[in-house]
Amino acid sequence: MDKLKPETNLNRRRLLVAGAGGVAAGLSGWSPAGFAQAAGSKPLPPFAAFKDASRVIVHSSKTVETRRDAFGTSGITDTDILFARNNLETPNASVTANPDAWVVEIDGVANPRKFTVGDLKGMGLASVSMVLQCSGNGRGFFAHKTSGSQWKVGAAGNTLWSGVPVKALVEELGGVRGGMSYMTSSGGETIPAGLDPKKVMVERSVPWTAMEEAILAWELNGRPLPLAHGGPLRMIIPGYYGVNNVKYVKRVAFTVEETHAHIQTAGYRVRDIGVKGAPDQPSMWEMNLKSFITHPADDSKPVRAGMVQVHGVAFSGGSPVNAVEVSIDGGKTWHAARFIGPNLGRYAWRDFVLPVRLAPGSYTITSRAIADDGEVQPELRVENHRGYGHNGWRDHAVKVKVA
Amino acid sequence: MDKLKPETNLNRRRLLVAGAGGVAAGLSGWSPAGFAQAAGSKPLPPFAAFKDASRVIVHSSKTVETRRDAFGTSGITDTDILFARNNLETPNASVTANPDAWVVEIDGVANPRKFTVGDLKGMGLASVSMVLQCSGNGRGFFAHKTSGSQWKVGAAGNTLWSGVPVKALVEELGGVRGGMSYMTSSGGETIPAGLDPKKVMVERSVPWTAMEEAILAWELNGRPLPLAHGGPLRMIIPGYYGVNNVKYVKRVAFTVEETHAHIQTAGYRVRDIGVKGAPDQPSMWEMNLKSFITHPADDSKPVRAGMVQVHGVAFSGGSPVNAVEVSIDGGKTWHAARFIGPNLGRYAWRDFVLPVRLAPGSYTITSRAIADDGEVQPELRVENHRGYGHNGWRDHAVKVKVA
Repeated sequence: MDKLKPETNLNRRRLLVAGAGGVAAGLSGWSPAGFAQAAGSKPLPPFAAFKDASRVIVHSSKTVETRRDAFGTSGITDTDILFARNNLETPNASVTANPDAWVVEIDGVANPRKFTVGDLKGMGLASVSMVLQCSGNGRGFFAHKTSGSQWKVGAAGNTLWSGVPVKALVEELGGVRGGMSYMTSSGGETIPAGLDPKKVMVERSVPWTAMEEAILAWELNGRPLPLAHGGPLRMIIPGYYGVNNVKYVKRVAFTVEETHAHIQTAGYRVRDIGVKGAPDQPSMWEMNLKSFITHPADDSKPVRAGMVQVHGVAFSGGSPVNAVEVSIDGGKTWHAARFIGPNLGRYAWRDFVLPVRLAPGSYTITSRAIADDGEVQPELRVENHRGYGHNGWRDHAVKVKVA
Repeated sequence: MDKLKPETNLNRRRLLVAGAGGVAAGLSGWSPAGFAQAAGSKPLPPFAAFKDASRVIVHSSKTVETRRDAFGTSGITDTDILFARNNLETPNASVTANPDAWVVEIDGVANPRKFTVGDLKGMGLASVSMVLQCSGNGRGFFAHKTSGSQWKVGAAGNTLWSGVPVKALVEELGGVRGGMSYMTSSGGETIPAGLDPKKVMVERSVPWTAMEEAILAWELNGRPLPLAHGGPLRMIIPGYYGVNNVKYVKRVAFTVEETHAHIQTAGYRVRDIGVKGAPDQPSMWEMNLKSFITHPADDSKPVRAGMVQVHGVAFSGGSPVNAVEVSIDGGKTWHAARFIGPNLGRYAWRDFVLPVRLAPGSYTITSRAIADDGEVQPELRVENHRGYGHNGWRDHAVKVKVA
């Protein structure tokens, strides 16, 4: 919303966006002709044309990142600035015109069957707040050459979802069949002609117990789930990296094995630099402990000397965040930050603030989260081929000039 | 967001909107030429041009209501569907182009002074979720002829706000002067030439103790506060009716007396039908205990027989909501509903759900909230001249056909 941005500002932002996204754009066949031609000719890819161009970074035709200085301090990431990342072309927009007609199949239960979204809406209702984060968020901080979008902090957002608990469906269908170890969700994207489905399809398996908190969601942030974020129906697994939250979900099966789709067997596997992905490597499932500063942001104008409310967000897919510390000297000394706003639950992020008086000069400001189980967010990234799961506080620091 | 609505749907909604808003529009001088000419020519007034026309009801050039079936179940009301109601013309949009330059004066403290929003951002930070509700929400259910927008349920929404605690400013300025009983906030709208400022200015006084939880907010739902909702700066008093949350706030003064502005002395006063407003009548301050059903909605298509997840929202400006009961037989029998989603705090609303199996037929579905102190949402409205503060569950019922 708030489309009444001054033209001058839009133009300035546009240059910044083009500067940041140019290379990736060229690689992915992204062409200016594909841009949404909304007011101000915002350089957004068509599937994300509704985003606020002044507050996102466009990496490619399939990837849009939230700017660090756009997150605000109110707990929730507005859908208009939420990052978007599609593995395949989105289905035709007609599928969200009549969302209740979308069909999903439930299998690996005593009595498998298909439901429409209209059916699901009668079967149960739950709402959850959770961080949605791409596995590669922070990839842009890695020093080796990583393929994939060079996300900094903004391939993450805190979101609200409503839908039917998967558990309610399972109970209705007589329970999960014996011997099943995984919950496997399949995306409803059309596979481009001539490609091997197994190579490109979006199908992800997670430990079957994740169903306890999973929902099949039709609503994002209080609105019908838009196509860009997986509408009409998306698998939502609180605490799990984005890819597991399968969009346009057309099938949920409890299975003995993980899917043999490439995205599961070789994709989203953490391995050493130069090593190929393989099923015996750790899969990007539960998110690790992480925090980052959202103000001051290194890409904004110099900060005025005096009192500054340093703020950021902290979250975890495992043991919940218990405290956050902030450093203004690059990690030499740390100060306890204070949480603000409502606690939206263990899978949501929490805004924190540290008021500090800053004299003119340069500062390296960062944060580290501490979990209930005593774990502390680490200083350094874990080097890995694809640049997954970066939660090191050193790379996430902002370098700020105070004048 | 999600601007990719099919044209046919837009056209259908447009007819509904025109039917509902026609009379009020004529009275307020609302002209088609003033419409935003966005995709689909949505019939929204210019100040609220960014709203989702398919999910709101346009009453006049200054009033837009959320449709009952648009609220969803995720706790927060998206800004694109949030009701809007302006008392005067909004200030020029240029004021939100550089929000940090907006000036607010703090008076009635030991050391009065002016601050820019840029100053305020260094002085403190808080975030709160609260229901924003117009005093006249529910006016459309009154039987006598009430002047003002004929709101049904949708002049309310649950929102997230970030800003500086008023208390932090007061402490910085040496505390409130002795003898002060009110906190008086003045809006920064331009008074139309030829009008007596006291007659039209937006200036509201509340008990001074309300400052304990009040914030001066620059952010709504995680985004910079838009002009339509009071940007660059709005007084936010959790638990108080909308009018007290003064937009474009340019002065906050602790005062001995209530302001003599008409909006305070005669406006927003609860009195018997036919009686003029006067300062000795109750002022619309703290919100009363209320709930309403959001699904099924009486303005949507017939409900399919079988299991239905009946849901709605419950809130209070006083003793917090503790429980909600739902009736499907017009109030003869009641069933305990279940809360869903995170608890966003005592001034937020809470989504509730009751699963019921409905056979074909007609139903009158309603809800009643119960507060911590034992108060139960009443059955009947309190008749009053201007139709303020309606929280009677009978009028708020939806009549639903199940087929």
